[in-house]
Amino acid sequence: MKILEDRIKKDGRVLGEDVLKVDNFLNHQVDPQLMQEMGDEFARLFDGEKIDKVLTVESSGIAPAIFAAAALNVPMVFARKKKSITLSSESYIADVYSFTKQETNHVMIDKRFLHEGERVLIIDDFLANGQAVTGLMEIADAANAEVVGVGIVIEKTFQKGRAMLDEKGVHVESLARIAAFEDGQVVFAD
Amino acid sequence: MKILEDRIKKDGRVLGEDVLKVDNFLNHQVDPQLMQEMGDEFARLFDGEKIDKVLTVESSGIAPAIFAAAALNVPMVFARKKKSITLSSESYIADVYSFTKQETNHVMIDKRFLHEGERVLIIDDFLANGQAVTGLMEIADAANAEVVGVGIVIEKTFQKGRAMLDEKGVHVESLARIAAFEDGQVVFAD
Repeated sequence: MKILEDRIKKDGRVLGEDVLKVDNFLNHQVDPQLMQEMGDEFARLFDGEKIDKVLTVESSGIAPAIFAAAALNVPMVFARKKKSITLSSESYIADVYSFTKQETNHVMIDKRFLHEGERVLIIDDFLANGQAVTGLMEIADAANAEVVGVGIVIEKTFQKGRAMLDEKGVHVESLARIAAFEDGQVVFAD
Repeated sequence: MKILEDRIKKDGRVLGEDVLKVDNFLNHQVDPQLMQEMGDEFARLFDGEKIDKVLTVESSGIAPAIFAAAALNVPMVFARKKKSITLSSESYIADVYSFTKQETNHVMIDKRFLHEGERVLIIDDFLANGQAVTGLMEIADAANAEVVGVGIVIEKTFQKGRAMLDEKGVHVESLARIAAFEDGQVVFAD
């Protein structure tokens, strides 16, 4: 998506070898017009699929996911992230390991908001090692819901998340695909 | 706002004496069409005010705030909530006490995203004791930004947040105002 790539070039900050900070338009300060265009683009990319619900994880997934849900005219559900949980019969729960923070969190979705046979689109801000997406897929699986596809704002193709999802046969669409960081600059995949 | 009140009557769940759960359309499962109408309504209610930025707190404030920001055509910044913080010269930080959870959290906004003289609109999902809004106002104050107003999705008029903001002369607009819960039913203020 050209306007997103341009925005990453203009406002993204590369830190170290593999970190891209986009906190001035995506995950701290948020550009609503860009979010709307991204939501429309996700709807276009998954056009033809029947989608009942959009799933994401708080907090950075919420803005892109709510505009995708608006464009698809379906509800959005965001999983809550918790450091510690008490097991409950009321929620689906999955573990999500964060490589950046080196800690395991739990994500949970109330059973009232995900049902057998529902066709869900998972949206997230980043795809790196695929931990958050895998957690949401586990939850969908536990609910006997079907994951129609995964929509990602920024994918780092050099980390293992994409390959893992491809192996599982998941339909993944990323609005920007980053192949590498070179001399502090972003190199996009074709 | 009629459609919001109708939705609260239809889908809200009153728990105990003073808790209203709206997790099926506002803060877990989210209705994007309703969020869009709420965002438009906030823009209408603060029409005539020059607004440079919308502020909120993760996570439940994000959906209404991003649509208000979209309608106003300005950026939205969501404060990050942290249990523990390391003081930093890079962020504005305020304490927010949660009466429901009986714990103090910190909210923080990167100094790059709030500037002297900026006119900000604070949006949040609930106004009860006003702790989150007060935290954001402290942050705006520390940045020498000006709080133009506070937009609330659901206000509980019987808790002390509204009175406290009125005393400070803050322009508050709430889309739904709840005067009481009676026999498990919501009673709206006039």
